[in-house]
Amino acid sequence: MTLNETIPKTHLAAVYSPDTGRTTIESVPTPQQGDLAPGQALVRVLFSGVCGSDINLNAAAKAANKKLVVGHEGTGLLVALNDPLCRLAPGARVGVKYIADTCNQCDFCLKGNDMLCPDMKAHGRHVPGTFQQYVIAYTSQLAPLPDAIDLVDAAPILCGGVTVYKALRDGGVEPGDWVSIPGAGGGCGLLAIQYAKHFGLNTIAVDTGADKEALARAQGADKWVDFESAGGDLIKAVKAATPDGFGPHASIICSPSGDGYPPAFASLRPGGTAVLVGLPEGYALPVDVCLSIREKKHVKACFVGNRQEAIDALRIAATGAVKCPVAVRPFADLQATYDEMLAGTLRGRVVIDLRA
Amino acid sequence: MTLNETIPKTHLAAVYSPDTGRTTIESVPTPQQGDLAPGQALVRVLFSGVCGSDINLNAAAKAANKKLVVGHEGTGLLVALNDPLCRLAPGARVGVKYIADTCNQCDFCLKGNDMLCPDMKAHGRHVPGTFQQYVIAYTSQLAPLPDAIDLVDAAPILCGGVTVYKALRDGGVEPGDWVSIPGAGGGCGLLAIQYAKHFGLNTIAVDTGADKEALARAQGADKWVDFESAGGDLIKAVKAATPDGFGPHASIICSPSGDGYPPAFASLRPGGTAVLVGLPEGYALPVDVCLSIREKKHVKACFVGNRQEAIDALRIAATGAVKCPVAVRPFADLQATYDEMLAGTLRGRVVIDLRA
Amino acid sequence: MTLNETIPKTHLAAVYSPDTGRTTIESVPTPQQGDLAPGQALVRVLFSGVCGSDINLNAAAKAANKKLVVGHEGTGLLVALNDPLCRLAPGARVGVKYIADTCNQCDFCLKGNDMLCPDMKAHGRHVPGTFQQYVIAYTSQLAPLPDAIDLVDAAPILCGGVTVYKALRDGGVEPGDWVSIPGAGGGCGLLAIQYAKHFGLNTIAVDTGADKEALARAQGADKWVDFESAGGDLIKAVKAATPDGFGPHASIICSPSGDGYPPAFASLRPGGTAVLVGLPEGYALPVDVCLSIREKKHVKACFVGNRQEAIDALRIAATGAVKCPVAVRPFADLQATYDEMLAGTLRGRVVIDLRA
Amino acid sequence: MTLNETIPKTHLAAVYSPDTGRTTIESVPTPQQGDLAPGQALVRVLFSGVCGSDINLNAAAKAANKKLVVGHEGTGLLVALNDPLCRLAPGARVGVKYIADTCNQCDFCLKGNDMLCPDMKAHGRHVPGTFQQYVIAYTSQLAPLPDAIDLVDAAPILCGGVTVYKALRDGGVEPGDWVSIPGAGGGCGLLAIQYAKHFGLNTIAVDTGADKEALARAQGADKWVDFESAGGDLIKAVKAATPDGFGPHASIICSPSGDGYPPAFASLRPGGTAVLVGLPEGYALPVDVCLSIREKKHVKACFVGNRQEAIDALRIAATGAVKCPVAVRPFADLQATYDEMLAGTLRGRVVIDLRA
Repeated sequence: MTLNETIPKTHLAAVYSPDTGRTTIESVPTPQQGDLAPGQALVRVLFSGVCGSDINLNAAAKAANKKLVVGHEGTGLLVALNDPLCRLAPGARVGVKYIADTCNQCDFCLKGNDMLCPDMKAHGRHVPGTFQQYVIAYTSQLAPLPDAIDLVDAAPILCGGVTVYKALRDGGVEPGDWVSIPGAGGGCGLLAIQYAKHFGLNTIAVDTGADKEALARAQGADKWVDFESAGGDLIKAVKAATPDGFGPHASIICSPSGDGYPPAFASLRPGGTAVLVGLPEGYALPVDVCLSIREKKHVKACFVGNRQEAIDALRIAATGAVKCPVAVRPFADLQATYDEMLAGTLRGRVVIDLRA
Repeated sequence: MTLNETIPKTHLAAVYSPDTGRTTIESVPTPQQGDLAPGQALVRVLFSGVCGSDINLNAAAKAANKKLVVGHEGTGLLVALNDPLCRLAPGARVGVKYIADTCNQCDFCLKGNDMLCPDMKAHGRHVPGTFQQYVIAYTSQLAPLPDAIDLVDAAPILCGGVTVYKALRDGGVEPGDWVSIPGAGGGCGLLAIQYAKHFGLNTIAVDTGADKEALARAQGADKWVDFESAGGDLIKAVKAATPDGFGPHASIICSPSGDGYPPAFASLRPGGTAVLVGLPEGYALPVDVCLSIREKKHVKACFVGNRQEAIDALRIAATGAVKCPVAVRPFADLQATYDEMLAGTLRGRVVIDLRA
Repeated sequence: MTLNETIPKTHLAAVYSPDTGRTTIESVPTPQQGDLAPGQALVRVLFSGVCGSDINLNAAAKAANKKLVVGHEGTGLLVALNDPLCRLAPGARVGVKYIADTCNQCDFCLKGNDMLCPDMKAHGRHVPGTFQQYVIAYTSQLAPLPDAIDLVDAAPILCGGVTVYKALRDGGVEPGDWVSIPGAGGGCGLLAIQYAKHFGLNTIAVDTGADKEALARAQGADKWVDFESAGGDLIKAVKAATPDGFGPHASIICSPSGDGYPPAFASLRPGGTAVLVGLPEGYALPVDVCLSIREKKHVKACFVGNRQEAIDALRIAATGAVKCPVAVRPFADLQATYDEMLAGTLRGRVVIDLRA
Repeated sequence: MTLNETIPKTHLAAVYSPDTGRTTIESVPTPQQGDLAPGQALVRVLFSGVCGSDINLNAAAKAANKKLVVGHEGTGLLVALNDPLCRLAPGARVGVKYIADTCNQCDFCLKGNDMLCPDMKAHGRHVPGTFQQYVIAYTSQLAPLPDAIDLVDAAPILCGGVTVYKALRDGGVEPGDWVSIPGAGGGCGLLAIQYAKHFGLNTIAVDTGADKEALARAQGADKWVDFESAGGDLIKAVKAATPDGFGPHASIICSPSGDGYPPAFASLRPGGTAVLVGLPEGYALPVDVCLSIREKKHVKACFVGNRQEAIDALRIAATGAVKCPVAVRPFADLQATYDEMLAGTLRGRVVIDLRA
């Protein structure tokens, strides 16, 4: 089964080198139909979002001293596949997510925890990712894209979107409840505000700076708390942002830095839940056992979503209810984008245009 | 409304003194019908269980430099009450729990989180407890006792029992799943094993010593892991106790010491939940954010149960399915019992007989 | 505890007479502070919504051959109360709901099923209702009103609003799912559309006529199906209104007539849930056992909400997210309003102004 | 991939003929490795349970005027398969369930509703069943069998067991609650009693006759109600079997006849749930809308379970907690068994031995 278009012999790929710590655009061989193992598919990637975790994944490749193509928010067209049971046909618009492949036969998979499958492969971690014009994906996890969603808009939903969608669903909150969103001004944070509003929740955006405040308010944030100006009164300020002063029912913690975690946990309402979303490498949140018990405060860890959750998150986005503000940049700007992320100067979310 | 028996002028009470750090049996004035404020009830306490948290509550009284009667697993008879709306009549067999009084009008109460009511009063913390022959209780939280349960057997259910009942209900587990129970040999741990078996769960008792192993197995523990002999292999041993080697779906951590927490959390199956039950004062469990996310491990805090949950836990115990092995001791032995608890030499759970 | 205003000796009440089958405005004695039994409160009613079930309640009074004041969507001021434990003080803005009084001590109450309390009293059924200027209410069930909500807007939330709020919460639906709402053009139906949109659901309004279509669309209905024009293709039309053609995930059946039920049930997606809300007296829905099993279709019955659910539904309305279009009419027009309801000519929802 | 044993050219199969309405054992061609389409597997069936629904399936074959092999509780060995992604290897002990094949790609499958997959194929309905020595199964739905379970004991779990396991899980009940089980003396009913006891529920077995009473009590029924002797007082008798007289929290209705449904629904406690399990062809349960609303009574339909639920039900059975009393009969006795079922004289559950 091949799309009625010629698969090229080579394509461009953004290859991270552990030696230089830099990513360069190189020509690499393109897999052909005959190269696809059972369950594999070839996808022509047209757009791919840049996610904060790409930095972590590059770092992991450096630690393992291996060259790697990262990227896991790819959207494009299914070109070829080796799976007679797959419902998707060449030509289908598809999304390539972080979770590349799962067995769909273990307890974890069958209970909807695709991300915990012992044989899970991830793009940019175990197998090459989507910062290349053609990528080998797997029929077990390809996400069909709704007709109504733009390929650019779909990209950030595939990782950031589904993650916060799931975090909100797991946060034990109900319409009318309050959630705080530390790291609200980043890509995940902005998506979290939008999904939260769509779910009938009230939102407290926590971040810093007038730019991020404007962005957060534009996505529908009900309250804004600037952690820089709040300083030592941050916990008090977040609690005060709720009408009864007890604090939010949940906190969807999108902060990439560990500093955001203790105040987010401390400012929760009794009975509240902290949902871990950001990935502050190496950071441990100290959970005081007796205090947590007396205030019945819980911690939920959220790690992307399963295939159906990705489909559900995309469907909501396809209605126009959720749309991440993005800047589309040419392929050549990928390394510059990383540089801005590392320098902390990047505003909003970037989607790379991989079309020739 | 008064029971047709004379309320005495004085009764015996176990008074903790912050000066001596000791508890002595003293004669104190007994409240009369006219002394009861609206919503109050007078209960003649016949038995009262000794709970690990009584040690914490004595310590808190010392820190606050106040004399106090603790005890919150009291069973006895309702003698008088000042509440025309209460359904319980004098003569009723009742339990006096840790939660003494709640408003039943705030969001926390109305959503079943009695323990989070901002006006919650607790026996042995905000108001005197049940280590005395007559105690002022509150109609908002009195637990009616099923006819079929013995007053001695009901005592440990009122705190330890309902707590582990609730912990198991909140642990995200289903019949057929596995739970580990660190601190299995203590009162809460033994009750946790019994409730877990009643719920169709498989249990891994974690504690140390042949005596505790025998006790745990007698309550129905499926597997036993001795943390002393396991040593550095404790995590591995707990995982190995589950048929597929991934570890338990939840851990009901009853350990009074912080040491039990990190291995309990680390040995959870991906997607598993640690339920905090023990009260290791001042201890904070470090939750590595990235690791927890990648393994989707959650932390739930469990703090007794609400009034209905106490009633439900008692009903199950009344069928004979759950019965904590206890030693009944005379009132005069209360301080000696504390001494054994502090020295770590106490085996099993003690219920104090307060009858004259 | 009395509001610093004089309680009059008499007030006006709308008394239904089983002899005439008509409701007349009469002067009746006003209860004084000393008349209040424990747990009772006196409320000065300023507005009271007219609910479809008032017709049923009048009919029940006729069957029982007793005079009765109905009405259960009353908003006004707490004037006096006999309950030293109640947190509400005279002067408080309160709502008087269908559920007048519950014991708050039985299993049903303690598990949040206030409406199933064996001792539940209802306004307009067991005790007089709110179509009078002063009503005896009960502190067990009074609903405090948020500051931000208008007394007129709050009225229909107290019965219709909380009922559909609860129906949507119980319908097993998630943001992004589809619900059909037969009877969409009535008061409950319009509220159901608004709450559904607030919860992130997609809505199919089912009713008849251009007026009702306009009303339903104005509340945010995504799709409209006219059951008259659809005729025998109604089931097909409702299924076709969902993007994949399988039909809605739930149906919140607000139809006052039994005719609406079978097509609502039949047009559900496999795995879907019919939520019974309308009250077609004497009608039985035939549930084909084998068909229902093979399509896994469920039936949920929804009967108002508990006290906390009323508070939650009011809070959402107070944000402006939900607001039922109402016509305010003078007290004298109550019987005329009933006449229009019985004739089927009433458009939208009526709130009676009880101020002098 | 083929088991290291020779696949025979022919094998024995129980073929139902619509002309005679009888099932005869015939020799049929055995599919070879090369005959297997992608996703298919060949299973050597050693045992196969006789389920009440086999009668319905034969009737359906008659109505469709086609010859068919039914049977969907088959246990045996995987012999060959055409699916490079399947984890099961030839030689594996497997169960062949009613659900033969699903797409695992639609919303229904991905949300755990395998039985609602539009492309679901069922053994004995769309494809041949397990009353033959070799059957074509599908890797999408094969159930691996735990080592500890006997092939005979596993058979009835594959349909009856998983169905009642799921019914109890969906019934909204918690440990300590009461369930009634009409049809308790049949295969599903007996399994329901055992799973219910394993889940910590209290059980009221409803059926008739001393034999069935003895069987039900032997599986652990707490209460017994004989519907024949109860007669017009059946509803009262079932309510009276619960300690507070309100009736059971749920009813797992296993009755093959419609007569059992109305009293089961009517005797539910307010707030209770009727779970439809039995398959009384053509029968519709009348659900009085207003009565159901006022008592908040719900109806859940239960149709087998998904693949994971089958695995979970088998795991519990493998511990010995659940074991259906069965009679093992030779292949030649299949038609005689049907005859006894149709005559209502069959006691307990039959498993057919298909070994040569």
